[in-house]
Amino acid sequence: MENTHRSGCPISTSLEVIGDKWTLILIRDMLCGKKRYGDFLDSPEKITTNILASRLSDMERYGLVTKQLYNKRPKRFEYVLTPMGSALKPIVQSMCIWGNSFFPETWVPPKSFMAPD
Amino acid sequence: MENTHRSGCPISTSLEVIGDKWTLILIRDMLCGKKRYGDFLDSPEKITTNILASRLSDMERYGLVTKQLYNKRPKRFEYVLTPMGSALKPIVQSMCIWGNSFFPETWVPPKSFMAPD
Repeated sequence: MENTHRSGCPISTSLEVIGDKWTLILIRDMLCGKKRYGDFLDSPEKITTNILASRLSDMERYGLVTKQLYNKRPKRFEYVLTPMGSALKPIVQSMCIWGNSFFPETWVPPKSFMAPD
Repeated sequence: MENTHRSGCPISTSLEVIGDKWTLILIRDMLCGKKRYGDFLDSPEKITTNILASRLSDMERYGLVTKQLYNKRPKRFEYVLTPMGSALKPIVQSMCIWGNSFFPETWVPPKSFMAPD
């Protein structure tokens, strides 16, 4: 993690880590049990392989996920949320509420996803 | 607002509007009472004038803020949150909690900012 933040504001510092259009989509996928490259590529937003590789590498560097080898030849990894990554759930839950309020065409998430931990 | 979203997911759709490093910084500033160009430029993250102009214009287009003339010559505008913009408060509050938990050097926001509305 970089030590030079734009400011000491917790919102600004959070945005340096999750302030892009893809990271929280991958967090959503992992909160829903997805772990593997192919799982993330299958999501309806159709992330490209180069953005996926770049985001997963950033997320590992920031400490949001850990990478675990599940196949030796060829080498294949699974990505698992750390406590820091799992703790993003209230942020994505708030986004669900906001999104559902102002974009009525959006899906309503399952109650299990919206339940407090 | 564009009608072609990446998917019907409320998280993905929200990120199309607020998924960048600056929009929620400006929302924070407006939630704290800032309204004018110079106020936003004064914030410690030091947004540049061209990014500020671009983000304010996007935010107006998405319906997060309205622009109000407060000086006729020269023309000067104030930016005020719409209900859609104000409703982002729980998202930035969740980011404060997450930021404070995982970046201990970040500021703790005033209780008034963290109170439910």
